Amino acid sequence: MAFISLTTTFVGATVRPRKSALCRSTKHRPAPDEIFTPSASAVPRNKNLEKLQAGYLFPEIGRRRNAYLAKNPGAKIISLGVGDTTMPIPPHICKGLADGASKLGTPDGYSGYGAEQGMGILREKISSILYKGSIAPDEVFVSDGAKCDISRLQQVFGSNVSIAVQDPSYPVYVDTAVMQGQTGLYDSAVSQFEGIAYMRCDASNGFFPDLSTVPRTDLIFFCSPNNPTGAAATREQLTQLVRFAKKNGSIIVFDAAYAPFINDPAVPTSIFEIDGAREVAIEVNSFSKYAGFTGVRLGWVVVPNELVFADGSPVRADFNRIMTTCFNGASNISQHGGLACLDEQGREEIQGLIKYYLGNAGMLRKTMTELGFDVYGGTDAPYIWVGFPGKKSWEVFNEILEKAQVVTIPGAGFGPGGEGYLRLSAFAPRASCEEACKRLRALYAGVAA
Amino acid sequence: MAFISLTTTFVGATVRPRKSALCRSTKHRPAPDEIFTPSASAVPRNKNLEKLQAGYLFPEIGRRRNAYLAKNPGAKIISLGVGDTTMPIPPHICKGLADGASKLGTPDGYSGYGAEQGMGILREKISSILYKGSIAPDEVFVSDGAKCDISRLQQVFGSNVSIAVQDPSYPVYVDTAVMQGQTGLYDSAVSQFEGIAYMRCDASNGFFPDLSTVPRTDLIFFCSPNNPTGAAATREQLTQLVRFAKKNGSIIVFDAAYAPFINDPAVPTSIFEIDGAREVAIEVNSFSKYAGFTGVRLGWVVVPNELVFADGSPVRADFNRIMTTCFNGASNISQHGGLACLDEQGREEIQGLIKYYLGNAGMLRKTMTELGFDVYGGTDAPYIWVGFPGKKSWEVFNEILEKAQVVTIPGAGFGPGGEGYLRLSAFAPRASCEEACKRLRALYAGVAA
Repeated sequence: MAFISLTTTFVGATVRPRKSALCRSTKHRPAPDEIFTPSASAVPRNKNLEKLQAGYLFPEIGRRRNAYLAKNPGAKIISLGVGDTTMPIPPHICKGLADGASKLGTPDGYSGYGAEQGMGILREKISSILYKGSIAPDEVFVSDGAKCDISRLQQVFGSNVSIAVQDPSYPVYVDTAVMQGQTGLYDSAVSQFEGIAYMRCDASNGFFPDLSTVPRTDLIFFCSPNNPTGAAATREQLTQLVRFAKKNGSIIVFDAAYAPFINDPAVPTSIFEIDGAREVAIEVNSFSKYAGFTGVRLGWVVVPNELVFADGSPVRADFNRIMTTCFNGASNISQHGGLACLDEQGREEIQGLIKYYLGNAGMLRKTMTELGFDVYGGTDAPYIWVGFPGKKSWEVFNEILEKAQVVTIPGAGFGPGGEGYLRLSAFAPRASCEEACKRLRALYAGVAA
Repeated sequence: MAFISLTTTFVGATVRPRKSALCRSTKHRPAPDEIFTPSASAVPRNKNLEKLQAGYLFPEIGRRRNAYLAKNPGAKIISLGVGDTTMPIPPHICKGLADGASKLGTPDGYSGYGAEQGMGILREKISSILYKGSIAPDEVFVSDGAKCDISRLQQVFGSNVSIAVQDPSYPVYVDTAVMQGQTGLYDSAVSQFEGIAYMRCDASNGFFPDLSTVPRTDLIFFCSPNNPTGAAATREQLTQLVRFAKKNGSIIVFDAAYAPFINDPAVPTSIFEIDGAREVAIEVNSFSKYAGFTGVRLGWVVVPNELVFADGSPVRADFNRIMTTCFNGASNISQHGGLACLDEQGREEIQGLIKYYLGNAGMLRKTMTELGFDVYGGTDAPYIWVGFPGKKSWEVFNEILEKAQVVTIPGAGFGPGGEGYLRLSAFAPRASCEEACKRLRALYAGVAA
């Protein structure tokens, strides 16, 4: 890194020579014994963070990928791993973002802090366009994405609640629960944290849990279309879920980040399509996957006014307190992009992106099916869930990385119920997806069948 | 809100008529008794959120302002309240943002998820330009702003730590500590939470705490230049602070969000200018106030590798775990803006903004001084702290709002040590600042002196 001159051309400063205020020099650090004997602080480590296992899943995937690349420089790796969008942002939506940025350079267009809950006009559009007015604008909280919202929701509920998760599931539900102190220790014998109800979702139950075996918990994290299995819960299943929550006095945190990928018109795209859901559910959503906003960061949460704690106080008020105290609003530029997403033109562009990724999903489904594997998902979701019964999923991951240079995600990374499965992501350029299918056919021809 | 047609022009879909996947209908909610008897959930409210007092300060200010406007429509209110930037983003930096947005529309320029810790090039530039290499790039965590980072740091430390704050101070330190369960109940007799060490900073001690009276705590939140008092701690004071932390095995969370406003070349702009700080301090920073990024959202945290918990484990690793699990990176567009801020041209533009706001600060200082008030801050900080001894600051706030239509912030909003003071913000258009000075002169001529 170059040492950059600090001379500024700042005109009109006081006469005494001054350095750039932004670029004031800081001393190089002294040798450790120059002043103090180095030693640990007396601050206790957070016991809840100690409980966590290894790193967060997706960085671990990246680490293994990079380790492979370091050993095999020049390897042409294809990623069907982390669900990261690859298509450029379509023109109308991109213009919304760029215009949102440019207007900040004009006196009339400049804006500073917005409401922490998001621009009023964006909350109204989400209410009127995406929920047809069945959700009020002030029940919509605009955010920087679903992952962050899940963490903030956990901050709302705190440590004195119990949770249930689908098994397998997106790792953030469990990890944030552990961080909040909602769980006991990790039991490596069963690959589970004590105190969490893992609701097994596998081929045997159509990827919907047998609720008669699930204990009562305060919170139920439920993702549909599901990451990683690609299963989209039917209206009947979601009705069961809402009744189960109601009976138990539980709150469902419904993760609908993949809802627009649902093709089947009979499948609900929002938990609020189910009667009674307003009294038992929160919905988490995101523009990431279908508008290409994984890097732009924009999502929202719906907390209905009817949702109350045991003491009768509204959950919405406490979520609002967390949003205003621990967050400062999504970037105003991202929010302008969100407005463009909801225009008629933006919605058409989004349909194009969804069609593209579901085209990849169909190709991956076809390939793995023809190779004789049991294949799930991929029709109403951008993820394909492939069974490798009797195999360790990290071993399958390694094999495919080493022999086909394709990055996938081992099912075990999503919980013990994911063992023996592999997730393939449809978020890839078409040509890469085609090449990956070719390599997978070469690797597995005649193996699974 | 208009009911928007859901017809899309999506071409090439399956033959069966389908609605826009993004805009699937959701039912209007049923009458409460249609299926269930409405009732509270059985989920306990988070006891820590119950402890919080009223709303977060700044929304409360907005609420009072709007209430005044509702009663006095057409009133020409000037805001010297919330520290929100008003100047447009200068051309080079704005172009950085707009180009960052536009490139997302191209195959080569598109990017999805980045590292949760920020773009490598931005971390390197912060390291090399702002810290002259004394901080390593991997000790820099890019974020969506200082407020969010303070909350994430509190998540790292969890509930089993004790904290000290300057009194008065930015309310987020105390509020997030309460939310984490680090405190006891609020004691309205002293306007303090049990379990927090309030380090009084007022005119009598030059706005630096008498550390001999401060009990040992795990964390010490310290903001310099200070919000709200505008005091910038000297090198001697910060050396005292670092030695105090070292002696007690405490960790300082140093909020340097206003550092570039420091004019005095003898005043440190980073805690890491102080010998030994790498073993006891974390630094929180932000582009908000001097690049006009309050709405764009971009900041960073420095966690030195030497900083360790009592068990010897690195704080940096736990912060990294929180950043990767509870956050998904600052918007890539905002990060492109950050890169432009650190170019030579961007740094010059920032100097222009700082000069502008400090010009306002000088004007406010002069006005209040000439009116006979005791005035602090405003030379190395964008805030002016004005004494109204013997008066309740919320009453002074109301008086100035009602009689001069100027919004300020009552000192008591920053803690009990702020009672009897008022904060004036220099973040305002020049003409508004001039008009505010005129109105304040009219209101207070001959009163204070």
